[in-house]
Amino acid sequence: MKYAKIPEITIHRLSLYARQLALLDMNNVKVISSVDIAEACGVNSAQIRKDLAYFGEFGVRGIGYYVRDLLFELRKILGLNQEWRLGLVGVGNLGAALLRHAVFLKRGYTFVKAFDQDPKKIGSQIGNLVIDPVGKMENEIEKAGIDIGVIATQSQMAQECTDILIRAGVNGVLNFAPIQLKTPPHVHIENVDFTLKLDALCYKLTAESKAPF
Amino acid sequence: MKYAKIPEITIHRLSLYARQLALLDMNNVKVISSVDIAEACGVNSAQIRKDLAYFGEFGVRGIGYYVRDLLFELRKILGLNQEWRLGLVGVGNLGAALLRHAVFLKRGYTFVKAFDQDPKKIGSQIGNLVIDPVGKMENEIEKAGIDIGVIATQSQMAQECTDILIRAGVNGVLNFAPIQLKTPPHVHIENVDFTLKLDALCYKLTAESKAPF
Repeated sequence: MKYAKIPEITIHRLSLYARQLALLDMNNVKVISSVDIAEACGVNSAQIRKDLAYFGEFGVRGIGYYVRDLLFELRKILGLNQEWRLGLVGVGNLGAALLRHAVFLKRGYTFVKAFDQDPKKIGSQIGNLVIDPVGKMENEIEKAGIDIGVIATQSQMAQECTDILIRAGVNGVLNFAPIQLKTPPHVHIENVDFTLKLDALCYKLTAESKAPF
Repeated sequence: MKYAKIPEITIHRLSLYARQLALLDMNNVKVISSVDIAEACGVNSAQIRKDLAYFGEFGVRGIGYYVRDLLFELRKILGLNQEWRLGLVGVGNLGAALLRHAVFLKRGYTFVKAFDQDPKKIGSQIGNLVIDPVGKMENEIEKAGIDIGVIATQSQMAQECTDILIRAGVNGVLNFAPIQLKTPPHVHIENVDFTLKLDALCYKLTAESKAPF
């Protein structure tokens, strides 16, 4: 199966489906139709069938999908059937909130290291994690076997910290800093940029008020 | 100009360009070529010219773009040449971090109200804002002239709070809760869903390790 050829938006939707299925499973729902998953995820059911078809046959004719089975398959496809070890860089307000956010743990993501450059923060503890100095990052990241680096520094620090992560062997970066990071082709970056999302909202609200129709 | 017909991804990039231009302007750069903006934003220069062409002629042949002029125009297009009033719903770790995040103010976004349902939080203060009870939300949102609601509640509360925002006349919602909100067609939603982004990273890292090439 040529995983690499699957459209990015399909992966995004698989992740949405998995989230919805996990909710259904928690509520003891055993079987669901593609129409019902579709409605809950805000897509159409033909789309779901098409997205799943990249990976095989999952539905049962006349029945629908077995919730737990499909969830298991989706988690396997997405690579979520394993623990992922995260390293946080930048323990400001946002970084600290991320460390405390229950949503990560619920999905198998564990912060195993946190770094900051502020001497007042270094050595202090959030949950089980003691904050390490950025200066020790390269070494510590390698030792801890971090899979994914989470950048929550200020913009000016983000590139430098990303470079260190990459030198330490990290190939995946979740970036919260409002800046475009430059990385080699083998490194995957996802940007969580809420000011861009806000700008998009403003554009839509403004465009409507200007539109002649 | 039919604003409503512009592709979403173009708006996203305009916002990126504006961010880059603001940085250049801060560093006193007066003129820039499309090639240089392109490189900084990680797109190609033909793309920039195409994106801008939806809105008019901005470059000067043989010179490039005047940084401050183009920034002014982009901010006007995006609707960022005005103050936007935000109301936060849910002052947990993430919500509190958002209230304290400098990036909003820098871009003309002001939190003017914050709501929570926890009696221990109601009445307490973050920055200049006193946290109001969710029960008073509908009334307070209307009085305060909120343009955009920011949902940072737990998933279970997100839909209910969004419904209240909409009843109070809010047409734009920035949603941080990991759930698909259901809203009428006139309401614009942008989801900031970092677990979906993490899932996408995991998929890519997993797919690579499985790929036969």
